[in-house]
Amino acid sequence: MIDIKKIEELSKLIRYYILIATTRAGSGHLTSSLSAVELMATLFFGGFFRYRPGEPKYHNNDRLIFSKGHASPLLYSLWAAADMISEEELLTLRKFNSRLEGHPTLKFPYAEAATGSLGQGLPIGIGMALNAKYIDKLPYNTFVLLGDSEMTEGSQWEAIQIAAHYKLNNLIGIIDVNGLGQRGETLYGHDISAYEQRIYSFGWEVITTDGYDIKEITSSYKRALLVKDRPVMIIAKTTKGKGISFLEDKNGWHGKVLSEEQKNLALIEFGEINKNIRGKIRKPKAVDLTMEKIEVNEIPIGNENISTRKVYGISLVNIFSEFPNIVVLDAEVSNSTFAEIFKEKIPSRFFEMYIAEQNMAGAAIGLSLRGKIPFVSSFAAFLTRAFDQIRMSQYSNTNIKFVGSHAGVSIGEDGASQMGLEDIAMFRTLLNCTVLYPSDGVSTFKLVKKAAEHYGNVYIRTTRMDTPGIYSGKEDFVIGGSKMLRSSKNDIATVISAGITLHEALKAYEELKIEGVLIRVIDLYSIKPIDKETVNQAARETKSIITVEDHFAEGGLGEAVLSALDTQCFFKILAVRKMPMSGKPFELLDYEEISKDSIIMQVKNLLS
Amino acid sequence: MIDIKKIEELSKLIRYYILIATTRAGSGHLTSSLSAVELMATLFFGGFFRYRPGEPKYHNNDRLIFSKGHASPLLYSLWAAADMISEEELLTLRKFNSRLEGHPTLKFPYAEAATGSLGQGLPIGIGMALNAKYIDKLPYNTFVLLGDSEMTEGSQWEAIQIAAHYKLNNLIGIIDVNGLGQRGETLYGHDISAYEQRIYSFGWEVITTDGYDIKEITSSYKRALLVKDRPVMIIAKTTKGKGISFLEDKNGWHGKVLSEEQKNLALIEFGEINKNIRGKIRKPKAVDLTMEKIEVNEIPIGNENISTRKVYGISLVNIFSEFPNIVVLDAEVSNSTFAEIFKEKIPSRFFEMYIAEQNMAGAAIGLSLRGKIPFVSSFAAFLTRAFDQIRMSQYSNTNIKFVGSHAGVSIGEDGASQMGLEDIAMFRTLLNCTVLYPSDGVSTFKLVKKAAEHYGNVYIRTTRMDTPGIYSGKEDFVIGGSKMLRSSKNDIATVISAGITLHEALKAYEELKIEGVLIRVIDLYSIKPIDKETVNQAARETKSIITVEDHFAEGGLGEAVLSALDTQCFFKILAVRKMPMSGKPFELLDYEEISKDSIIMQVKNLLS
Repeated sequence: MIDIKKIEELSKLIRYYILIATTRAGSGHLTSSLSAVELMATLFFGGFFRYRPGEPKYHNNDRLIFSKGHASPLLYSLWAAADMISEEELLTLRKFNSRLEGHPTLKFPYAEAATGSLGQGLPIGIGMALNAKYIDKLPYNTFVLLGDSEMTEGSQWEAIQIAAHYKLNNLIGIIDVNGLGQRGETLYGHDISAYEQRIYSFGWEVITTDGYDIKEITSSYKRALLVKDRPVMIIAKTTKGKGISFLEDKNGWHGKVLSEEQKNLALIEFGEINKNIRGKIRKPKAVDLTMEKIEVNEIPIGNENISTRKVYGISLVNIFSEFPNIVVLDAEVSNSTFAEIFKEKIPSRFFEMYIAEQNMAGAAIGLSLRGKIPFVSSFAAFLTRAFDQIRMSQYSNTNIKFVGSHAGVSIGEDGASQMGLEDIAMFRTLLNCTVLYPSDGVSTFKLVKKAAEHYGNVYIRTTRMDTPGIYSGKEDFVIGGSKMLRSSKNDIATVISAGITLHEALKAYEELKIEGVLIRVIDLYSIKPIDKETVNQAARETKSIITVEDHFAEGGLGEAVLSALDTQCFFKILAVRKMPMSGKPFELLDYEEISKDSIIMQVKNLLS
Repeated sequence: MIDIKKIEELSKLIRYYILIATTRAGSGHLTSSLSAVELMATLFFGGFFRYRPGEPKYHNNDRLIFSKGHASPLLYSLWAAADMISEEELLTLRKFNSRLEGHPTLKFPYAEAATGSLGQGLPIGIGMALNAKYIDKLPYNTFVLLGDSEMTEGSQWEAIQIAAHYKLNNLIGIIDVNGLGQRGETLYGHDISAYEQRIYSFGWEVITTDGYDIKEITSSYKRALLVKDRPVMIIAKTTKGKGISFLEDKNGWHGKVLSEEQKNLALIEFGEINKNIRGKIRKPKAVDLTMEKIEVNEIPIGNENISTRKVYGISLVNIFSEFPNIVVLDAEVSNSTFAEIFKEKIPSRFFEMYIAEQNMAGAAIGLSLRGKIPFVSSFAAFLTRAFDQIRMSQYSNTNIKFVGSHAGVSIGEDGASQMGLEDIAMFRTLLNCTVLYPSDGVSTFKLVKKAAEHYGNVYIRTTRMDTPGIYSGKEDFVIGGSKMLRSSKNDIATVISAGITLHEALKAYEELKIEGVLIRVIDLYSIKPIDKETVNQAARETKSIITVEDHFAEGGLGEAVLSALDTQCFFKILAVRKMPMSGKPFELLDYEEISKDSIIMQVKNLLS
């Protein structure tokens, strides 16, 4: 039996907390937080949300994601009402070094993910729900609090399609339809049926409710938890600024807080608040977390002509026994990225994410936060579709391995739209993201393994065409390392490269050698972090560095080397500088002046 | 009266063309092209598509966008059947320097936009339809050929929402539901009603049709063109590989072509083909293009403490008379980006694009291709949401001005999710994209104007907080220029910066001067292209360069300067290197070591 009166009192307390926290902070999203109080209070304290407050990491806790991250004051206030945060700490909202940041981050122990860039909560929720239903096979639910404005984000509709496809009945969204966006009415205002029809048409269970009638909210959650075969969306009609009369449903208050005087007026409206009550959260069932053991036969990797993209697929299979937490996601190109090799051998750990890269990246965040190691692939070019999600993943300190195939102009005839030419630059911008670019079978396998061992985001760039083997199976590869493939005391220059252009550099080496010209060749398989020592030594000893990459000139391998140099030397970046187009791979490498012949010419220029 | 027999014959011819072109090319998307032949042939030659073939740029031509860009062989073959491309040229498909690239580019005179990254066609179509309905006020229609697989892309659902909102009845999508994606069945297979229900729920007119019954297709187009108040989606049940028995509805043929032997088998199946017939395309109505003259009163710009984001908004108004082709788009943050200032003064040229950045960027591509100058704004951080669309815009050689506000950690308390820290790196990767970062009111106004004058993509980074005026109104600013703000014969170092950190550098200058230490200070308001001359002169004369940016270290202002240097000197990049968080702006600048004090310390280190 739900204690409606208690929830109403707790809601008052939560409103009080939101008010004092934001007023003290001098900024924050007051009205956006106020509108969803009863929805969250009923969830938390009505027995629908199950959690061990002392153990945020408990594997069978329900999950709550604030997709409308700007309602963070509500999140923090909820947990204060649950007696896990003090009123004093609430007053540190938005202060430097506070656990209570402007939008939730993992500094706050009860934030499931860093949010604040809208439209990302449902995808993250998908990752957690997929994990619960299909991998860990645990009964926890994932709740996602959504704003109405953010429902225009395409990523939400990707999630809505995918969640229905995977029958994620353990995913419950709650849309706070307060009708007002940042600068005026939202697309549908308070037209609840607009949301209802649309989401229903995608195969979700849809439940509508008033946002403040606790009895109605209670039956909504009850009903939601009975659904067995489809995800659930609770759509609540709410009022922005609810609870403070001069704010309710008024435009112009988004992101604004009250002055001391206004706060006092609001407090008068609130009347007496029982600051001593606290809410109890229902405990989750105690269940063991058992990993299903999956037997896997390794696949032999040839090192003769084979593409690194194919070795990637094989490597996933071969390392799985050592890393049974691996989950593989792909965006309908698994026959191109070769994630399909893993899909064939270990289908229960592969999830087709369809042509919806944003949702795929968000799901990877969710899976990573639930302790899995997601390997996420598509064409390198199409990973740019998910840059905002990839950007946000760094703020959740995730352990995602992004893999982009079809790098560069060397993919050939498909042309520019399919060519990854900015992916190295994109991933380099992420704090603490490792960027790897292996050039043959052996190094690909070993670096995929290193990526799995390493905690943190990793990007691996793979090549479309078959390339020759370079390394023997005995060679070792380390994050932050490089390989000096050719060197002598008489090198007149160093060519630093990776991937397809490394092979061009090796071919150039052979031709130059015949003419008596020696160059050093370095395989920079780890672009970030970079082997500063080897690169500077090469600068000191050979006085000239030429970098070559099948990638645009800005932010890529060349600029990474340049930034690492603290030695004076001649420096030249060979990269894609002309409009890319269809053509044969080697025609395009020549056209873009990143081929064997271009390298030879650059080296010879140094001699004249 | 439609000549069904003629369309059937033309369809045969088109199939023949697709077959020979892809077989000769040795690659290409044969089956994806074959499935939509009748749909396109009926559109083109049934009198529904109106176009002056000799004048691709005619302002009242209907527009056809191949969102499923990989069906380019169909696009090219259609125009061959319309007698504008020769059979001989068809055989150059995918060859280096051919006009007929793997995915359509503007090299092909009848491609409306470069496509190939899925899910982008409908947004581009929105831009063109908005232009026709609300700006140029012309009666042309925009047709978009869509694949079924790509309907999972969130960007399509952003477009579907926005198109309904703007009542774009002049936008007609045609989904080729062939049920097979790249590696197997699509999400809904051949369940036409799945698409029907979903799209209908968003307020579109939905018409279903068989993909090969020309009579039915004809009535579908007839009906589509009668709709007055909502966009139209024709959903066609088709067969991948239609027309070649051994390919029809078979998985595994995506992106594959036939061998010579297989081609001959197919030709036998085709039977006799009349290669002499050509189709006629109906002419559009001859209408004048008249620009509605909009009178605008300029807004005086103060140069004392004012934010560059606010000056951006004012500048849009003030330059409009000189650039009446300007159209402004914003993603529901116009009160933050200050695009709202333009919205208030010139509402007919402002389009709210809601929280759907991918569609906004796609619409900008469409508007640019129809001769408008789109100024497109959101928080710099949220422009990363649209990186794939931004990437693709360069291949359409667009003239879009992207404007990202709330740059850097200096936005303060909102925290990391809202901070643009990778935007300079992102836009630098685009070929021929200008990257500008003005630091005060005068330079912002002049550079916004320069951006409008300049043909090509431009990115302008704006600051949240108010900053002091630096320049007098007499100063001039050029793309590729810089300003040497402080200099002497005794500068011991040069500090190069822009935006908020430029102001820190100027403050550092004053404090150092008091201590008798002189530094050069350069405002690098044009990061790309960069003023190589001034930067190298500073390196030569002062021997040390310190760059400072409120941006991550990779790919930003620092690496841009480093890449431009061909002079030996000491070099240091100050940038955001630590996990960003909530806090006061100046607290965060200090924490990230990009503040006045950090600059002073770096300079003093040089002295020791």
